[in-house]
Amino acid sequence: MTQTPPHPILQALVGDGEVGAFFSDEAELAAMLRVETALAEAEAKVGLIDEGAAKRIAEVSRTFQADWSRLAEGLARDGVIVPDFVRQLRAAVGEPHARSVHVGATSQDIIDTSLVLRLRSVVEILGQRLATLIHNLDGLKRRDGATRVMAHTRMQQALPFSAADKIDTWLQPLERHREQLQDLAPRLLVVQLGGPIGTRGELKGQGDAVADAMAEILELGLAPSWHSQRDRIGEFGAFLSLLTGTLGKIGQDIALMAQNEVGEVRLATGGGSSAMPHKSNPVPAEVLVTLARFNAGMLGTLHQALVHEGERSGAAWTLEWMVLPQMVVAAASALSKAQGLVATMGFASSMSTEA
Amino acid sequence: MTQTPPHPILQALVGDGEVGAFFSDEAELAAMLRVETALAEAEAKVGLIDEGAAKRIAEVSRTFQADWSRLAEGLARDGVIVPDFVRQLRAAVGEPHARSVHVGATSQDIIDTSLVLRLRSVVEILGQRLATLIHNLDGLKRRDGATRVMAHTRMQQALPFSAADKIDTWLQPLERHREQLQDLAPRLLVVQLGGPIGTRGELKGQGDAVADAMAEILELGLAPSWHSQRDRIGEFGAFLSLLTGTLGKIGQDIALMAQNEVGEVRLATGGGSSAMPHKSNPVPAEVLVTLARFNAGMLGTLHQALVHEGERSGAAWTLEWMVLPQMVVAAASALSKAQGLVATMGFASSMSTEA
Amino acid sequence: MTQTPPHPILQALVGDGEVGAFFSDEAELAAMLRVETALAEAEAKVGLIDEGAAKRIAEVSRTFQADWSRLAEGLARDGVIVPDFVRQLRAAVGEPHARSVHVGATSQDIIDTSLVLRLRSVVEILGQRLATLIHNLDGLKRRDGATRVMAHTRMQQALPFSAADKIDTWLQPLERHREQLQDLAPRLLVVQLGGPIGTRGELKGQGDAVADAMAEILELGLAPSWHSQRDRIGEFGAFLSLLTGTLGKIGQDIALMAQNEVGEVRLATGGGSSAMPHKSNPVPAEVLVTLARFNAGMLGTLHQALVHEGERSGAAWTLEWMVLPQMVVAAASALSKAQGLVATMGFASSMSTEA
Amino acid sequence: MTQTPPHPILQALVGDGEVGAFFSDEAELAAMLRVETALAEAEAKVGLIDEGAAKRIAEVSRTFQADWSRLAEGLARDGVIVPDFVRQLRAAVGEPHARSVHVGATSQDIIDTSLVLRLRSVVEILGQRLATLIHNLDGLKRRDGATRVMAHTRMQQALPFSAADKIDTWLQPLERHREQLQDLAPRLLVVQLGGPIGTRGELKGQGDAVADAMAEILELGLAPSWHSQRDRIGEFGAFLSLLTGTLGKIGQDIALMAQNEVGEVRLATGGGSSAMPHKSNPVPAEVLVTLARFNAGMLGTLHQALVHEGERSGAAWTLEWMVLPQMVVAAASALSKAQGLVATMGFASSMSTEA
Repeated sequence: MTQTPPHPILQALVGDGEVGAFFSDEAELAAMLRVETALAEAEAKVGLIDEGAAKRIAEVSRTFQADWSRLAEGLARDGVIVPDFVRQLRAAVGEPHARSVHVGATSQDIIDTSLVLRLRSVVEILGQRLATLIHNLDGLKRRDGATRVMAHTRMQQALPFSAADKIDTWLQPLERHREQLQDLAPRLLVVQLGGPIGTRGELKGQGDAVADAMAEILELGLAPSWHSQRDRIGEFGAFLSLLTGTLGKIGQDIALMAQNEVGEVRLATGGGSSAMPHKSNPVPAEVLVTLARFNAGMLGTLHQALVHEGERSGAAWTLEWMVLPQMVVAAASALSKAQGLVATMGFASSMSTEA
Repeated sequence: MTQTPPHPILQALVGDGEVGAFFSDEAELAAMLRVETALAEAEAKVGLIDEGAAKRIAEVSRTFQADWSRLAEGLARDGVIVPDFVRQLRAAVGEPHARSVHVGATSQDIIDTSLVLRLRSVVEILGQRLATLIHNLDGLKRRDGATRVMAHTRMQQALPFSAADKIDTWLQPLERHREQLQDLAPRLLVVQLGGPIGTRGELKGQGDAVADAMAEILELGLAPSWHSQRDRIGEFGAFLSLLTGTLGKIGQDIALMAQNEVGEVRLATGGGSSAMPHKSNPVPAEVLVTLARFNAGMLGTLHQALVHEGERSGAAWTLEWMVLPQMVVAAASALSKAQGLVATMGFASSMSTEA
Repeated sequence: MTQTPPHPILQALVGDGEVGAFFSDEAELAAMLRVETALAEAEAKVGLIDEGAAKRIAEVSRTFQADWSRLAEGLARDGVIVPDFVRQLRAAVGEPHARSVHVGATSQDIIDTSLVLRLRSVVEILGQRLATLIHNLDGLKRRDGATRVMAHTRMQQALPFSAADKIDTWLQPLERHREQLQDLAPRLLVVQLGGPIGTRGELKGQGDAVADAMAEILELGLAPSWHSQRDRIGEFGAFLSLLTGTLGKIGQDIALMAQNEVGEVRLATGGGSSAMPHKSNPVPAEVLVTLARFNAGMLGTLHQALVHEGERSGAAWTLEWMVLPQMVVAAASALSKAQGLVATMGFASSMSTEA
Repeated sequence: MTQTPPHPILQALVGDGEVGAFFSDEAELAAMLRVETALAEAEAKVGLIDEGAAKRIAEVSRTFQADWSRLAEGLARDGVIVPDFVRQLRAAVGEPHARSVHVGATSQDIIDTSLVLRLRSVVEILGQRLATLIHNLDGLKRRDGATRVMAHTRMQQALPFSAADKIDTWLQPLERHREQLQDLAPRLLVVQLGGPIGTRGELKGQGDAVADAMAEILELGLAPSWHSQRDRIGEFGAFLSLLTGTLGKIGQDIALMAQNEVGEVRLATGGGSSAMPHKSNPVPAEVLVTLARFNAGMLGTLHQALVHEGERSGAAWTLEWMVLPQMVVAAASALSKAQGLVATMGFASSMSTEA
């Protein structure tokens, strides 16, 4: 429906179907419709708009078909998709309720809350994948933990230890990442409602009540308007990069242990080569390293967007849009790749005799 | 045909149709087919394969229809699209010439040369857009150059100067960027042919002759195999970020001059607001800042891929794939946005009397 | 005593005396001596070395004078300062207790625990400065909060609001940063003891007891050896960048409000110009932006070091050393600059009549 | 004399005495004095100031002793060292010539030209070191080139080739870096003279003549004032990161080949371990990787400073000061470490029989 970002097929290698789906255009639109509906229902509850209007908005939102090319034009012109989206939604709602759409809200209320709604699902999925990965690493440890392998410091052989010792160094940071996710989720998963300048000033004194009701409807936490305060996004980005960093370390370790000369790890399914059929490449292990380095660099870019001048920075906000979804998908992909690796790998001792 | 990268509609704001098209899956496939064809023709020329085989490969390449889902699977499995692509191409070529496809080549020969082919077009387009932008800035200078505006240092009013003085600070680096592009193009626009380990060793002593012939057919420069030497890519990335950086400075200047309180620049078409219809937002100027910050961060990430271990680093190479196309599109988009701004803006004196 | 890092006088602008002092060579040495002493005391407690040896080590550590040029040579040769440091300390301890120094420990135990000891002080100081800054912003809000100023979105005038509304957008993320610091401190402020490969294997079955005793002596938290798990460092770096990012947003807002054309903020003491004596430059506000962008970029670099291959990566660990101390000092400096700004600034209404 | 940047002893590992010396406070002061002297001489030549004044300024500059603590205070207050430096220099020059110091110039003229003067020496040194490294690699190739080693793709054994083939992949990008340095030097090594707002407007119509004379005296190229155009700095930074990237790839290759399990490279002097005396660590090879990743990240940060708003951005300029000197020293250090490695390493075949 719109122009595609560059190099789409690469998603087959570095993407993630389940989590990537939250960042499709359709998913964004659906989340925006949920937010407009919740806003209308909240405003009806406190008497700012009619109950009938809220019902009509909810009903239309369920079947709303966007004119995507006009949305894209609007985004290109306005720098944000919301003005044209609201125009289309008002047209679909029709008289007499069109004016009850988007009352007292601003673009950032819709965009940020719709992002948070999707991040709630992402947080859940990442948490589950983390739990599964930890579980699988525990299983690998039970099965292969007694195997003697060589510890390496500064890329030189140090002393032998057990595969269990090695796996522990992979497991422990993953446990901390679960803690971090729990720490940050209540800060992240909150409603955004501020109106044009973040004061809820267009809501006739009912701003906090509307925000409370929206949060309840959407099952999000409460917070004062935070649209010019981007630390929530920056904190989540940092979590994503910590996670891919840990997984990148695991991938790098595995690629090193899977070297032919080392042979301490067997990989079930290596990637093929167009020139050397005898080779078995540690593709998922390498991609974990890629994703770690990618997210690290993207995090450095995302944190540039913390300098969000005034009550809305088009420059900084757009930068978030370019960066955060990619980081989320990279983290999800890395978890999935790590799961696959752990499920199919095995430790092998490189030592002829017990060291 | 395959999973889409996250947040596709955002391309309407930060993408570029013309240049983005070179990084579609179809464009990549087409370029790969050109490279396989040129390889076969070059190999026929030196007698490594039959003339008939080369003709058959060229003919099939013109109408080849990929099985995209298998290509995606192959990419996910092998870490690179080429093995399955070659398998499909061989099947299409059929006997007796199937074995004459991709003789003595490796994935990187196809991927890198196909990238360079597309970058040649990109270099040309960027060069043209740079020239146009310079031309348009010259025109703006002729028209509005005499207007008195205020110079600002450290975000404070300094002393008055002319719009021409201001425009000169935008023009001069753009002239240097043209020079830089001319300096780097001969280093960048070269054929890659190395075979599995970069020695052209599978080409029966004819490696250099094949490479020469390929370069001639594809109208690319000659170079020894460079597949583990990624400075060409890193240098081009640096150019892209320098360019977007210069344009980002122009965008930031315009956004500051377009402030209501300053009023030294008029923008023809400002973006609208969903909450404040009276506003006229300097959207393209802001996006120039976004693209500058994005490419700067991406460059820091791309240069991590210079540490390309051994004769092929899956980790580092994949990182380039994730980063470079986005940088190219960002640079193209920035040039286009800058052209649009310059075409529609005007300087206005903020000074009641000549200072 | 050793070569100085480039551009030292710049610390006057972007450094921090109090916090920078924790990253002097002398402070590092003192912390390393504390760690060796604690290790010896812990080992004496569990019977791995003599009480007399522990006493001697503690006593010598109190007055130890390093041969700095040999430490520097050792660092250049070994990639880490500890081997030569231990050699010197053993020589100072003398017979018969020399061999009781550094028993069962490795470089990373000393370097990382000595870092954590200093970060404990840093965490305390940053926490206090955050509290002071919040207190001062509350004071500014009480004094000037009723002033009407203009909200700006996309660098254009939006609608008027109060200075209190503006200050709230600065205060709220600072409150979250206090929470984040409390969340991460227990993960960060833990002892590192692992021995050569992180298994505490050279400690004759007493490894955990030694680590427990060390932690008690040093008043640090307990943790299994974490020397190849760098998420603790990466998490703290992310906190530092979030903090400087928030302060950078405040700085950018102030620099924009202090523009002559806007005039909504008065700054007590602006920096002077060598060419334009009439100017009053918002230097500390600009430096807040600098430090935000610096730490963001440094964070992207620090997270590259999460890919810490094997049981000790010389490459990744050295990268942390180059980056983390600078980030800590930048964060401390930013807090100090923000305190100074808030203490001396005042809001002024730009509006002729109450809007 | 002033506060020291954090972690000074680390310079023993990652610093460079010869090149680092250009970024000492004393070297900066000396270069600033050269620039003020050249400015005065140029202004005397065109008649803007007395010959006697120029002589007095030159004479005083030769023996000028700065009050460093006041310079540091001035830098902290003004955001730039020049105002207090000029005050001190005027006091030292005394009447009647004090007013002839710094006529029509601004801070950026002094700081940027003094930087370029030092970068000219840096460019020369880096060029020489590059030449030496290329020479030494040629020597290594002649000596060990026939040794059979294993090529590795995706961290797996691919096919055997010769050490000469391997060395070629290190040499070729270094040759290109020499070209790049020659391409960029004329753009970089130019005088900066613009006065307060970059128009040379305070020089009574003699601005270009003064700039020409300064350039001649300082043996720099000519250019219009470029103080708000930071692409020259960004381009040089990109070169530095390309260079360290190439050296990082060499370091990574060597560290991989020096693995005990691989044993294709012998390193003369490995770093020692505090816990494992049997180990020989590839410290310089690892540090090459560190410096590559450091400079890559720093480049991403430096390019953020291309968005240099208005006629002087305190925020962006200060960011350059924090980043560029570190990048220069890292590049110089990497060249030096690579020279040391190449001078002492040897290839050894890992293959029992000729493959």
